[in-house]
Amino acid sequence: MPMSYDVLFASSNRNKFNEAKNILSNYGINLGFFKSRLKEIQAESIKQIAALKVNDAYRQCHKPVIVEDAGLFIESLNGFPGPFSSYVFKTIGNSGILRLVRTNRKAQFQSVVAYCDDKFGVVLFDAKVEGKISKNSRGNGWGYDPVFIPTGQTKTFAMISNKNEISHRYKALKKFSNWFAYR
Amino acid sequence: MPMSYDVLFASSNRNKFNEAKNILSNYGINLGFFKSRLKEIQAESIKQIAALKVNDAYRQCHKPVIVEDAGLFIESLNGFPGPFSSYVFKTIGNSGILRLVRTNRKAQFQSVVAYCDDKFGVVLFDAKVEGKISKNSRGNGWGYDPVFIPTGQTKTFAMISNKNEISHRYKALKKFSNWFAYR
Repeated sequence: MPMSYDVLFASSNRNKFNEAKNILSNYGINLGFFKSRLKEIQAESIKQIAALKVNDAYRQCHKPVIVEDAGLFIESLNGFPGPFSSYVFKTIGNSGILRLVRTNRKAQFQSVVAYCDDKFGVVLFDAKVEGKISKNSRGNGWGYDPVFIPTGQTKTFAMISNKNEISHRYKALKKFSNWFAYR
Repeated sequence: MPMSYDVLFASSNRNKFNEAKNILSNYGINLGFFKSRLKEIQAESIKQIAALKVNDAYRQCHKPVIVEDAGLFIESLNGFPGPFSSYVFKTIGNSGILRLVRTNRKAQFQSVVAYCDDKFGVVLFDAKVEGKISKNSRGNGWGYDPVFIPTGQTKTFAMISNKNEISHRYKALKKFSNWFAYR
């Protein structure tokens, strides 16, 4: 059976792909997985990282492709872990985050979806969700979801069943899907 | 007065240059400062980062040039902050490190000196110093020096007057100078 998709999603992280695929299927976009390790420039902006990654991905697959880069930015820690969220998660994890955050617990999740094809080049879509770091890790989510409570909620992202209808990733992918439908 | 030097040292960090210049002057190598912002790949090895940076530096200056990349690797934190030591220092600083480290305080400083010229291409020299994270920040040093106690000492790097005779950076630069003298 031949695989059919509208856009590839380049990532080494299948959780992230599954989340994106779910979200975009609601907008009639069929996402294919392009499992890949992409060049990551050590930059202090996730936009820059995403733009360079999608360029690299396009050079590898020569098909319409997106990458998504997200980061958790904690106000009292000068935006840490920010663009290094993935590395920080692998080393100190959520227990490290909980040890670092004290009185001011404000944080935001940012997402950038970067699209590339041969007609438009690189196009970026970004979004964010404000919130705070929880006092304890709660719920079974991946990444920082168990320690992030979005503003107006009492539960962490990991405990919220409709996370994919309110998340930073959802918002950025929705922006992309609107553009993609009418491009 | 014309400037004269044997090798350029590419960095945006003048503290690091001054330390390297002091060390190499003892080996008869006159270091010139090439103040520059170099491309940093988000890699999980400081060797890879240093190799790519010195390539970038050489393309900019077309003269024999070194870069030095160092990292603090904390055992109980899976090597954090490692290759991201500089970013982590700028955001959570030494107070963040002290909050993260608990019972097992073992750590090591690693240094990689990367040299590049048109004859040898890229040549790497690495070294490390074992030690532990102190309970408090002590002494006026830059970077992580006030929280790192080398094995066999009671003082932090920031308090040790002969740090430049025992440090990871010293050891890597000494390896380089031996090679440079007999290349």
